[in-house]
Amino acid sequence: MEYNVKDLSLADQGKKQIEWAEMHMPALISIRQQLSSSQAFKGIRISAVLHVTKETAALVRTLKAAGADIYLAGSNPLSTQDDVAAALVKYDGIHVFAWKGESETDYYNNMNEILKYEPNVVMDDGGDLHALIHEKYRNIKLFGGTEETTTGVIRLKAMEEQGVLLYPVIAVNNAFTKYLFDNRVGTGQSAIDGILRATNILIAGKVAVVVGYGWVGRGIASRLRGMGARVIVVEVSPLRALEALMDGFDVMPMKDAAKIGDLFVTATGNINVISKDHILLMKNGAILANAGHFNVEIDVKGLKEIAKNIRTIRPYTEEYELPNGNKVYLLADGRLVNLAAAEGHPSEVMDLSFSNQALSVDYIVKNHLSIEKRVYNVPLDIDEQVAFLKLKGMGIEIETMTEEQKEYIKQWKYGT
Amino acid sequence: MEYNVKDLSLADQGKKQIEWAEMHMPALISIRQQLSSSQAFKGIRISAVLHVTKETAALVRTLKAAGADIYLAGSNPLSTQDDVAAALVKYDGIHVFAWKGESETDYYNNMNEILKYEPNVVMDDGGDLHALIHEKYRNIKLFGGTEETTTGVIRLKAMEEQGVLLYPVIAVNNAFTKYLFDNRVGTGQSAIDGILRATNILIAGKVAVVVGYGWVGRGIASRLRGMGARVIVVEVSPLRALEALMDGFDVMPMKDAAKIGDLFVTATGNINVISKDHILLMKNGAILANAGHFNVEIDVKGLKEIAKNIRTIRPYTEEYELPNGNKVYLLADGRLVNLAAAEGHPSEVMDLSFSNQALSVDYIVKNHLSIEKRVYNVPLDIDEQVAFLKLKGMGIEIETMTEEQKEYIKQWKYGT
Amino acid sequence: MEYNVKDLSLADQGKKQIEWAEMHMPALISIRQQLSSSQAFKGIRISAVLHVTKETAALVRTLKAAGADIYLAGSNPLSTQDDVAAALVKYDGIHVFAWKGESETDYYNNMNEILKYEPNVVMDDGGDLHALIHEKYRNIKLFGGTEETTTGVIRLKAMEEQGVLLYPVIAVNNAFTKYLFDNRVGTGQSAIDGILRATNILIAGKVAVVVGYGWVGRGIASRLRGMGARVIVVEVSPLRALEALMDGFDVMPMKDAAKIGDLFVTATGNINVISKDHILLMKNGAILANAGHFNVEIDVKGLKEIAKNIRTIRPYTEEYELPNGNKVYLLADGRLVNLAAAEGHPSEVMDLSFSNQALSVDYIVKNHLSIEKRVYNVPLDIDEQVAFLKLKGMGIEIETMTEEQKEYIKQWKYGT
Amino acid sequence: MEYNVKDLSLADQGKKQIEWAEMHMPALISIRQQLSSSQAFKGIRISAVLHVTKETAALVRTLKAAGADIYLAGSNPLSTQDDVAAALVKYDGIHVFAWKGESETDYYNNMNEILKYEPNVVMDDGGDLHALIHEKYRNIKLFGGTEETTTGVIRLKAMEEQGVLLYPVIAVNNAFTKYLFDNRVGTGQSAIDGILRATNILIAGKVAVVVGYGWVGRGIASRLRGMGARVIVVEVSPLRALEALMDGFDVMPMKDAAKIGDLFVTATGNINVISKDHILLMKNGAILANAGHFNVEIDVKGLKEIAKNIRTIRPYTEEYELPNGNKVYLLADGRLVNLAAAEGHPSEVMDLSFSNQALSVDYIVKNHLSIEKRVYNVPLDIDEQVAFLKLKGMGIEIETMTEEQKEYIKQWKYGT
Repeated sequence: MEYNVKDLSLADQGKKQIEWAEMHMPALISIRQQLSSSQAFKGIRISAVLHVTKETAALVRTLKAAGADIYLAGSNPLSTQDDVAAALVKYDGIHVFAWKGESETDYYNNMNEILKYEPNVVMDDGGDLHALIHEKYRNIKLFGGTEETTTGVIRLKAMEEQGVLLYPVIAVNNAFTKYLFDNRVGTGQSAIDGILRATNILIAGKVAVVVGYGWVGRGIASRLRGMGARVIVVEVSPLRALEALMDGFDVMPMKDAAKIGDLFVTATGNINVISKDHILLMKNGAILANAGHFNVEIDVKGLKEIAKNIRTIRPYTEEYELPNGNKVYLLADGRLVNLAAAEGHPSEVMDLSFSNQALSVDYIVKNHLSIEKRVYNVPLDIDEQVAFLKLKGMGIEIETMTEEQKEYIKQWKYGT
Repeated sequence: MEYNVKDLSLADQGKKQIEWAEMHMPALISIRQQLSSSQAFKGIRISAVLHVTKETAALVRTLKAAGADIYLAGSNPLSTQDDVAAALVKYDGIHVFAWKGESETDYYNNMNEILKYEPNVVMDDGGDLHALIHEKYRNIKLFGGTEETTTGVIRLKAMEEQGVLLYPVIAVNNAFTKYLFDNRVGTGQSAIDGILRATNILIAGKVAVVVGYGWVGRGIASRLRGMGARVIVVEVSPLRALEALMDGFDVMPMKDAAKIGDLFVTATGNINVISKDHILLMKNGAILANAGHFNVEIDVKGLKEIAKNIRTIRPYTEEYELPNGNKVYLLADGRLVNLAAAEGHPSEVMDLSFSNQALSVDYIVKNHLSIEKRVYNVPLDIDEQVAFLKLKGMGIEIETMTEEQKEYIKQWKYGT
Repeated sequence: MEYNVKDLSLADQGKKQIEWAEMHMPALISIRQQLSSSQAFKGIRISAVLHVTKETAALVRTLKAAGADIYLAGSNPLSTQDDVAAALVKYDGIHVFAWKGESETDYYNNMNEILKYEPNVVMDDGGDLHALIHEKYRNIKLFGGTEETTTGVIRLKAMEEQGVLLYPVIAVNNAFTKYLFDNRVGTGQSAIDGILRATNILIAGKVAVVVGYGWVGRGIASRLRGMGARVIVVEVSPLRALEALMDGFDVMPMKDAAKIGDLFVTATGNINVISKDHILLMKNGAILANAGHFNVEIDVKGLKEIAKNIRTIRPYTEEYELPNGNKVYLLADGRLVNLAAAEGHPSEVMDLSFSNQALSVDYIVKNHLSIEKRVYNVPLDIDEQVAFLKLKGMGIEIETMTEEQKEYIKQWKYGT
Repeated sequence: MEYNVKDLSLADQGKKQIEWAEMHMPALISIRQQLSSSQAFKGIRISAVLHVTKETAALVRTLKAAGADIYLAGSNPLSTQDDVAAALVKYDGIHVFAWKGESETDYYNNMNEILKYEPNVVMDDGGDLHALIHEKYRNIKLFGGTEETTTGVIRLKAMEEQGVLLYPVIAVNNAFTKYLFDNRVGTGQSAIDGILRATNILIAGKVAVVVGYGWVGRGIASRLRGMGARVIVVEVSPLRALEALMDGFDVMPMKDAAKIGDLFVTATGNINVISKDHILLMKNGAILANAGHFNVEIDVKGLKEIAKNIRTIRPYTEEYELPNGNKVYLLADGRLVNLAAAEGHPSEVMDLSFSNQALSVDYIVKNHLSIEKRVYNVPLDIDEQVAFLKLKGMGIEIETMTEEQKEYIKQWKYGT
């Protein structure tokens, strides 16, 4: 069997990791049972570029159990868990081509490798695989593909608009059960986890400034309050600012918040929302963390320029001495604090994303003859099915509508 | 001056009510200053069918201050505050045709009355005025109209689809600053207020069952928790149910919740979500309230059928003795508990709706030559302006984007 | 049968009120069953001065069911519910001497009246009955008495110290199940209820200033936060201030809070915590309410002196126009807002106080031969029994210690 | 200079750690300035047995700055941070005798070592130093000592009762600013931190069972709720159980909670509160953690006996396969999860304990001639001063009483 991983002897440790993840991914496991009993993917080849983690293992093991042959490369040179990769090869017969610390060249080689097997379906996390296919593997007869990230979706939509997209793609990122829970619940918790691991500060009594009141910001703000912080929200949208205010948070511009915050967390998707000038207004000891996707939200470059001295205090905590004598502490160099300083999303959150992935692949396999070469949202009924299976896996039953109610609601479609 | 109100001598009391309302409606007052200094509605006649309350007074006084002539009838035979009506006539020169307890005939006569003045713009709350115009006053040359409610909007959309709509209408109901705050913040608080006034029960320690996790349900659930209740959410949508669960609420079907709840509040927009059978499962002493728009959510008819005895315990609290010997308590006969047992939305909430009304009228006046005979949502910039003015009126400044940020965000339109 | 009430024909309405109260007083009802089956108070005469409310009715009906003869006078000329008084006479054979609006002379006459019957036990709410006995009825051979309030306890402790106390008294006020739940849970909710009934303002988005972070202040602060307010705590004790801060509230002195608050609620037990000078710093529209026992916390006298104009806007809401042109709104003239503008404690809270009363009377009857003429706290096991019965009445079972655990905990008495 | 540490070359790393701690210990730093400017401890020798951490470094540096000579040994063979020890020796001239991994013999040798210098004051954490003095160093003329822990205080109180205590001791553990913040705020946060580091589970949506509703349990319960868990409290005290219920938590005995919990956290101070039998009732995947002082709360021994298989899944997470086929996960072998799997109390919390230590030493030095050979609580004014300095260090000003208020409150000492 073809594969390329670091060390097969790590397989037993990897197996335990996968079991731990699957223990917390009931929706995906229930989809596995369903797809597996019908052998829904029998004879299907799937090539996937994903972070090779224990949660991804749960996904590809599901696809495999449904009958597919799986070829898996890593979507980031640093994110592969070598023990998990080994377990997938040794115990599951999955063709993994990934290892932690692979070079840029290795990364592309591995992507090329998994495309050699003429997949029917491709899965991507970031859009590099889709781009490579459009460039060099235009002859593969693909049923379709999926894309996990916003960034990837933007690239694919551009292709769609230019009329050059070669196959239908389902944008898993846009599923309600993905973005809402990933952002609010997943990042909401893991950002705080990252801050605590990096600093071991006490949240209670601190003034925390959350920049951006989108889904990520909301999750962080509510959890910081739940741990005893006084929370200030900084927002550019008056609508979101008004929501924050009505949710009980203080709202002000950064120039004012900068002077009173103890802890700053950015989640805007925008650039330099904490600027050099803001930093110079801050109190001695202020802590800066980013929970947004890209490391552009805090002006790290500007901060480095003005710093008189920089030193590492703890892992992921760097002290910047400012010209005014104050010290501020930047976590994880302004990168996503939950990924850098903690462990990213818990398995429970990935359960939702990856259930959407598995059912989206199923949708493609079933409907590839009829769907067009476009970028599709995850169909609402898949989204609802994922939520339903998640609830069921957590032991939760929900209400069902009576026939009378179905009739009634059809007539009056007003929102409560 | 033409008018028809109950008693002009109530004008001084009405004036105080209006002042109290306006004290809590800073966004509308700031719009008043703006429209008034430009005399934006000079020469414009506006006929409006609205609940004649102190908050509506603040709205029509704004339109008047901007130069309009106002003809106002009540949108419900019972909702007119006679002192407010008197003050509008006496101190503001507004042509009011409304009194509390007017008959059905009076109600229609008053609507006919205000249409005699050939208005340029009409404002409605429920759609009866729009219907009357389409039936009997087709010759009025209207710039356009506004509609406050979902019900009215549904009727107007039906007309639009059939191609019979005579003038453009702005659906104020669909503004973000209306539905979100009305529902979550306004009803969230006032429903609890109504329950307390009706029953004087202690919320802390109770098991509260919130049926429906839309915006109203969310508002109620979070406030009940804030007062110490254990809250169970009943939902038919797995997506909303999963959100409720991740927000920390228990989730179960009504058949299970019925057995353990002390207090039940419905907010689904659907019929019989608490059925006779559910009621028979309930504990002795269970309390039932409705916070949804129509009094269909609790099966009151069924309850009355099975009741062995019914008696009024307190205003808005009726005891139903069931065949099984238990007693349950229905509040306000299953009608909207916040309107029936408390005072409906606080002025602060109406400030948002009515600011949208005022700016929508302004939009119609300015753009009536170019807009089509369709039902429009409130333009986003009006919605944002309302939020902005509300924040400003509350003394809140928000962040503004730098040029660099505006450029950056244009390229990457990803949601956080 | 001797009695003196306003109108016996109100008895049926009173009976319904009592039933409604008893529905929410499961602990007391369970004590009733217990004392009643043993006829614990057979032959005992009890004279009580209490607010003649539906909850007090539940208490005296319990004492009566246990075999006692009851003579009841009101503890406040305004607090008697005449329908409840009538029901107690007509349906329960309780000798009530009380009516709403009785004069000061009536009040004392009624107290004298109930002492004529040579009671074995007396119950008081404020200490006037105890004082009268010590002055004029020194020959009554009392087993003992109870006292509901702090004020009364202070008076009795003074007597005890001077060695003049004639009989043992149990200070019900000091029971954990009384002061903690009365204050934090009861006043916490009912103060907000009173503010909403008086003003109908929206809590969400407001800056609420809670003055005093004792049990009452904590209850109010947490519930205001639960309804969406930003809450500031003003405290003189650094220990309590630090707790407030760690609970996530902002903390500052009144001179600073005065400038930014929208709503002020006092609960300190101290005088003039909101002074004239503070009021002059406030924003236009500020609202002032008191939740402390006495109406001394807001300097109402000073406010009246500086006011240029005073007018009633709504029941319990008075507008004061200040020399600086601002208007502030004082609720219920600075008296306890939950009693004045709402209905005081819910029955669920009185259930705890009055269960302590009933069991304290039982304790006196059982132990009167052995206890001394002192002021006693409610014995811990009564306090715990009340809590246990309350939990049971709410359907809650708690954990029990194993023998092993009882042994272990004896050795190591450390607090978690 | 005498000392014994592992490696002086670690001093620079240690210095950074100490700086990081002191950045978050403003109360202690302010006490340092005060004691240092008066050279309050000039000529005083202090021998201390404490965990040699960065926070302890902040304490002993304070004592040193006030003029004392310091001799420091570790209070636990594993808790010494060697870099901090090195920094104290190299940069502060403190005589440290401690290293990580010292043997039991080393531990006692080091304690003997620091007693050779005939200290005037001793500080202890657990009582071993006090015991050693009473056994072997009875001739040292001590002004007095302090004790940090409950365990130590129990041992000293036993000595006091037997009349054998040789010098006065201040029980720092009993300070309000110690036990309340240590337990509720410190352990409340760090227990959750430990659970997340050990497991990386998602809190939101989980059923968390908190066993014990003392200060630790309250802190944990409120923070788990703040992160989206449904929280059940298990309690043996009806008073605490009723509080938990009124705080909005569900309450039930362990036999019922065992069946529905996803995560269990113990904080009772009692033995086997989660027994073998309870564990056999649990769902597959249940997670067990202890936040109480001793590792007796979960019956680990019983669990090991019944387990069919035990394996380590992640650091501090061990899987136990039960006879019924279910798997449960025990964190940190049932030891204090915040110390074992996270970093114990944040510096902000130790700031309070150690400020009490520093001021207690000051109290002993100032009053040693007048105080008796007893165990004293920290005087209230020290407790209040610590709170005040903490608030000040956090930039918080509190209210001060006027003379009028001081007079008023003297007369009426009633609690709100």
